[in-house]
Amino acid sequence: VKIILVNVNTSESMTEVIAAGARKYASPGTQTVALRPFFGPEAVDCNFESYLSAVGVMDRVLAYDEPYDAVVLAGFGEHGRDGLQELIEQPVIEICEASAYMAMLIARTYSVVTTLQRSVAAIEDRLRLAGVADRCASVRASGMSTLDIDADPQGAIRGIVEEARIAEAVVGLGLQTSKLCTYAAPEPKVIAGWPLSRPLGSHGKTDTRQAGSRS
Amino acid sequence: VKIILVNVNTSESMTEVIAAGARKYASPGTQTVALRPFFGPEAVDCNFESYLSAVGVMDRVLAYDEPYDAVVLAGFGEHGRDGLQELIEQPVIEICEASAYMAMLIARTYSVVTTLQRSVAAIEDRLRLAGVADRCASVRASGMSTLDIDADPQGAIRGIVEEARIAEAVVGLGLQTSKLCTYAAPEPKVIAGWPLSRPLGSHGKTDTRQAGSRS
Amino acid sequence: VKIILVNVNTSESMTEVIAAGARKYASPGTQTVALRPFFGPEAVDCNFESYLSAVGVMDRVLAYDEPYDAVVLAGFGEHGRDGLQELIEQPVIEICEASAYMAMLIARTYSVVTTLQRSVAAIEDRLRLAGVADRCASVRASGMSTLDIDADPQGAIRGIVEEARIAEAVVGLGLQTSKLCTYAAPEPKVIAGWPLSRPLGSHGKTDTRQAGSRS
Amino acid sequence: VKIILVNVNTSESMTEVIAAGARKYASPGTQTVALRPFFGPEAVDCNFESYLSAVGVMDRVLAYDEPYDAVVLAGFGEHGRDGLQELIEQPVIEICEASAYMAMLIARTYSVVTTLQRSVAAIEDRLRLAGVADRCASVRASGMSTLDIDADPQGAIRGIVEEARIAEAVVGLGLQTSKLCTYAAPEPKVIAGWPLSRPLGSHGKTDTRQAGSRS
Amino acid sequence: VKIILVNVNTSESMTEVIAAGARKYASPGTQTVALRPFFGPEAVDCNFESYLSAVGVMDRVLAYDEPYDAVVLAGFGEHGRDGLQELIEQPVIEICEASAYMAMLIARTYSVVTTLQRSVAAIEDRLRLAGVADRCASVRASGMSTLDIDADPQGAIRGIVEEARIAEAVVGLGLQTSKLCTYAAPEPKVIAGWPLSRPLGSHGKTDTRQAGSRS
Amino acid sequence: VKIILVNVNTSESMTEVIAAGARKYASPGTQTVALRPFFGPEAVDCNFESYLSAVGVMDRVLAYDEPYDAVVLAGFGEHGRDGLQELIEQPVIEICEASAYMAMLIARTYSVVTTLQRSVAAIEDRLRLAGVADRCASVRASGMSTLDIDADPQGAIRGIVEEARIAEAVVGLGLQTSKLCTYAAPEPKVIAGWPLSRPLGSHGKTDTRQAGSRS
Repeated sequence: VKIILVNVNTSESMTEVIAAGARKYASPGTQTVALRPFFGPEAVDCNFESYLSAVGVMDRVLAYDEPYDAVVLAGFGEHGRDGLQELIEQPVIEICEASAYMAMLIARTYSVVTTLQRSVAAIEDRLRLAGVADRCASVRASGMSTLDIDADPQGAIRGIVEEARIAEAVVGLGLQTSKLCTYAAPEPKVIAGWPLSRPLGSHGKTDTRQAGSRS
Repeated sequence: VKIILVNVNTSESMTEVIAAGARKYASPGTQTVALRPFFGPEAVDCNFESYLSAVGVMDRVLAYDEPYDAVVLAGFGEHGRDGLQELIEQPVIEICEASAYMAMLIARTYSVVTTLQRSVAAIEDRLRLAGVADRCASVRASGMSTLDIDADPQGAIRGIVEEARIAEAVVGLGLQTSKLCTYAAPEPKVIAGWPLSRPLGSHGKTDTRQAGSRS
Repeated sequence: VKIILVNVNTSESMTEVIAAGARKYASPGTQTVALRPFFGPEAVDCNFESYLSAVGVMDRVLAYDEPYDAVVLAGFGEHGRDGLQELIEQPVIEICEASAYMAMLIARTYSVVTTLQRSVAAIEDRLRLAGVADRCASVRASGMSTLDIDADPQGAIRGIVEEARIAEAVVGLGLQTSKLCTYAAPEPKVIAGWPLSRPLGSHGKTDTRQAGSRS
Repeated sequence: VKIILVNVNTSESMTEVIAAGARKYASPGTQTVALRPFFGPEAVDCNFESYLSAVGVMDRVLAYDEPYDAVVLAGFGEHGRDGLQELIEQPVIEICEASAYMAMLIARTYSVVTTLQRSVAAIEDRLRLAGVADRCASVRASGMSTLDIDADPQGAIRGIVEEARIAEAVVGLGLQTSKLCTYAAPEPKVIAGWPLSRPLGSHGKTDTRQAGSRS
Repeated sequence: VKIILVNVNTSESMTEVIAAGARKYASPGTQTVALRPFFGPEAVDCNFESYLSAVGVMDRVLAYDEPYDAVVLAGFGEHGRDGLQELIEQPVIEICEASAYMAMLIARTYSVVTTLQRSVAAIEDRLRLAGVADRCASVRASGMSTLDIDADPQGAIRGIVEEARIAEAVVGLGLQTSKLCTYAAPEPKVIAGWPLSRPLGSHGKTDTRQAGSRS
Repeated sequence: VKIILVNVNTSESMTEVIAAGARKYASPGTQTVALRPFFGPEAVDCNFESYLSAVGVMDRVLAYDEPYDAVVLAGFGEHGRDGLQELIEQPVIEICEASAYMAMLIARTYSVVTTLQRSVAAIEDRLRLAGVADRCASVRASGMSTLDIDADPQGAIRGIVEEARIAEAVVGLGLQTSKLCTYAAPEPKVIAGWPLSRPLGSHGKTDTRQAGSRS
């Protein structure tokens, strides 16, 4: 399996961080290739830049003339997925949508923390059109621009790479279910008159009395 | 990685088909174990049976005393995922919800074909609570009950197993994007005055004329 | 308990039919009084007439100077409930909204059959603002105007009176659950290894075999 | 009319409080019977316990071999209503859904106060599937578990019993419309040139002047 | 073009302010006529008064026996538009709905500030039925009644008149796009290898280096 | 007032038709300028072409160095409005969104007829993000591509130009309310005991009898 990760930014350092992260997390049988557009903005933080980037990304992927199995669009909620999908047969996985799927597998609701406040609306719109806004509790901004994050790639890029790994599967990431509220473990309680296997029954305290007189 | 597939039905033959399918499609490094409840209905086709099955499934998974990484709940839209998720730390992946995610990665809308008409409402409700009903175009019934399908497992079970493989990743399945309508390839057209890479530009016919007088 | 039923039409014959129906279906301890506005349209079939009627109904209820416990607004989705509710302390029960509640108690979805096509939009809007449009499958028109129905009161008024009886309770009406699809009875099936009471267990065929080997 | 109230908990004291409340509020002609499951959790506070309870409730109602007219499912938003409804012909009234109807008859929006924070999601889902979430302003937790409430039944159970009485009708409860905001009484104001009955007109100050020159 | 502005209140002073505002803002070729109902409440602040006003407004417009091209209903979210629209051929433009359109042309979301808290629900319902609630961020109350505003017409009426001018067009009002957040100008950034016109390219800093090696 | 109409296609003939239409329908005081991008696809019928066009449109508008008051984006539901709005202060009016507003002023629901089937999804998404999908009854395809329409500009472009005139105001277009269903005129009916002005009252047949005995 060979997966292309296309950075939406032309930043060389950011693309290298994506490449390193992909190599680190990919399964043994999975080959990853990180690309960046030939032209376009250094970093994408608004709709103007996102449209420039969309054309650059389509151009770069079509210029890649070796075989591959899927494209991961490494721009969180940016424009262009639908256009690229028209041009190629392989699945195009946009990481904002993919992150939502992964979050919904392990929690009832999820929140997004993005870069600048101006990006909140774009991400809300992207989640909505992707049909996964229903369980999104909030989209919030950190106040850091994409270039700010590029200057501190270690801390910030980690999240992007992990989200992109939906193509590798949630299980391999060692993710566990949030036990904070909805999926917290039951409190031990008396469960009367029920022939459950010991491990399930032990969530209740044994009660040898009959719960009621059976008709 | 070790994944448990729990059949919601106590049918032995159906469980064997699930086990065989899982072995066939699993990645080399992935171990799968197919279980069926100790008690409960032979096949689940209504809410009454689905509730019995929910308790049987929770009981069976907790009685499994070896380590594992995830549980796939092999019942399409049946009750019990939220209860089981409370009892264990590992992700519980219900195949109705997981199928929707997979479908949404490769198409703009999707449809579900289920067994009996009476199951349509339950699946609609499940998709809705899972937050993925928005892009569901329809839920339709084949008219075959779960036992009918059990009697012809080869044709019918294939779909269930494939849907359960979201935990293995969409790429490995060799899935390709639907080119029927939304993601159909663009028709060749004149694209004027644009320095695109050849493969992208070739979607348009070359036009050496200047599109307009630049200011 | 004393309930006022206010006709939204000034038609005398229609008001008499409402009065007779209310007397027939009311519980022993419940007194009903059917009123009609002092002024307003003979029959209400459009928004213009509905606004005239809204003022007439508010005027008529406030002119009633004896004590009462509730008002049933006997006009299906007509304007005026919110205004009347501002003027009096007692609950004002509008029969379009009340019918939806009753329908939702005994079925998963419901449909409305109204008079003219032009009333469909008004009823859709009323159900939507009442917050009960979600389970409304359709609103359809019979093509009969309110005056057409007045000319054949026996057949047509029966529905209105029955719907108004939500204030008397769904149980007393002898209503039963729809068994057509969602709430159809389960088919008999093998339910293995489960200590259910006989009446519940008898929905399954007895199976003395152990469903599986318990850990 | 004979109504069965099924407690979803096996707690004997809680069932007695339900029985006493039902006797106190029932209409003269209405007989009530309070039942508790033969097996299942003492109190239900999570999905795991709710599924156990669902089976216990279905088992208990089918074991009841005398005639009755309706079942009130006395568990706020718990699982099982749809399964029980498949098994019997009589209406099954779940008190979370029924409370919403009653609240919507007397107020524009309503809020739910439940037990633990972990139950908020389950109640939100229940209201949503019931199609009545639209006018639900909030679901909030008191922080008391079901057993905490059982220890102080007088104060806490009163709400449950009252909500279950939707089968008896909102009028009999002596409920009045909320006049806090939306349905507050109009302020007196000049209403010019309008032949309203005195009680309605008195909401305005009399104005003998002509409001304008009529064409 | 001749536009009728109908005040929903019978207040003479408020109608004069509307007339003056309309004269001031109308285009040269546009004639405006401000009318008030022959009967009805001095000011409208609740549903009871809104229904009285709805009849008064329909009566006043039909009593106007000269030709005109459109009616602006100068009551924010009041009842009656649908009834009046049935009675005449010309468009009836209700200013709550029209304001929403205008706001949506220049901003991604909008908020409404109304008079009393009791009017918030009515405006929310109006926006919802008009199909434009989706981008409404909030409806809030100033605490001033309509008569309070009438006592200080200069400051308060200005907003109403401006909103009514949707019939004159958003361009003529000299409105500009909100640049606070979503539509804020892009920050200057390096845009590599792109043959954009200078004014667009100047949003980025010139970069003579090649962004990547083109295949 | 000076309005720029930017064609999203580089087709010269299509731009000329837009220019001619704009001159014909503009108000006397309104100056219109029709532009086409310096580079980009001849006609836009898919997402790939729409992204190319979005960059070309932003480039062309910023290259226009004379003053203007508003931009009309003459591409039905194409990408780019949000990016262009970031770059300039003047309102950017996209004709898909503007058409919806105009349709909603004169009818309760509206439908869109577009070019190819593949554009239906894009328009549905555009209407949804614009917050005006609620009253959209359907989006349908004619089967003609944009170039097909260009070949027969007279018939096809007329609709585009008219829709773009929302900036000029609905009244000037001579539009009238649809009387087909919702806003059909009331049928004459007896309206009893009501002091309405003659033109309004004449919608009812005069009834000199007192409708009831007034208290």
